[in-house]
Amino acid sequence: MLGHLYEGQDCSAARALELMGERWSLLILRDALFGGRARFSEFQASLGIAPNILTKRLNDMVASGLLAKRAHPSRPDQYVYEPTEMGREVAPIIIALTTWGDRWVRPGPVAFAHGADCHEIRPALWCATCQDAVDAADVYVIPSSEAGATSAHNRRALSPR
Amino acid sequence: MLGHLYEGQDCSAARALELMGERWSLLILRDALFGGRARFSEFQASLGIAPNILTKRLNDMVASGLLAKRAHPSRPDQYVYEPTEMGREVAPIIIALTTWGDRWVRPGPVAFAHGADCHEIRPALWCATCQDAVDAADVYVIPSSEAGATSAHNRRALSPR
Repeated sequence: MLGHLYEGQDCSAARALELMGERWSLLILRDALFGGRARFSEFQASLGIAPNILTKRLNDMVASGLLAKRAHPSRPDQYVYEPTEMGREVAPIIIALTTWGDRWVRPGPVAFAHGADCHEIRPALWCATCQDAVDAADVYVIPSSEAGATSAHNRRALSPR
Repeated sequence: MLGHLYEGQDCSAARALELMGERWSLLILRDALFGGRARFSEFQASLGIAPNILTKRLNDMVASGLLAKRAHPSRPDQYVYEPTEMGREVAPIIIALTTWGDRWVRPGPVAFAHGADCHEIRPALWCATCQDAVDAADVYVIPSSEAGATSAHNRRALSPR
């Protein structure tokens, strides 16, 4: 772990970056969420990082709740690492990063799709009140405490725990 | 810059992480996009990082095209750093990180809203064909080359350059 790099920053984006720790973590989640990888050897073959670093990263991610470590269903002497709900909800971040990289660095090897007809999807900002996508340029920040009744409803919808 | 940390990874998410470089970069963009900050002293007061690190980070971000450095409109001896289009399009990544941190670490101090009535917005995955938001659990990866006619249309809409 890189530690509390953003100490003093009262910011959920900073805390998200801290918790996801070293940046390989996002690529491990990418492989687990979209690449069907679950075993140590599969992550190592995909990422090509040193085994000791991968071990530490996987252990950190289990400790922080992003991955769950379980016995392999048919090989009890081996383990699989599976994204928890917390880890699965990183998917929109990975898709947003990929879409941005596709446009601003160079087009990548994959696209994201849904449905039987492979409709391509892209990240958007959604207003539950308007039931419509909103342009990022029209978005501003408000204190959480000033989020109105509608917003409080949205927040509950996001956080059912 | 941390260098090509993800060498060998043919992945737009990895390239996006590389280009945004050290993680303070995302918080600088957060301050520029949503905090109205533009001057060196404003970023320094907000972030509390060492001036030499902030100088290097801002220069790196200008070099990579995320920020543009201009003379301050009314104080020509000073500079302002403003997000380029490339930098502005990082907004959905920051909003996705914030939303995730709000839910999985702890609720943060801000929410994102649009319109006169402060409708709260949240990240979503959008299908232009269905004209609807899609659940992340229903999203899968396809090779870019296999993205269909509809997808190619979406891609053009995303990348008008």
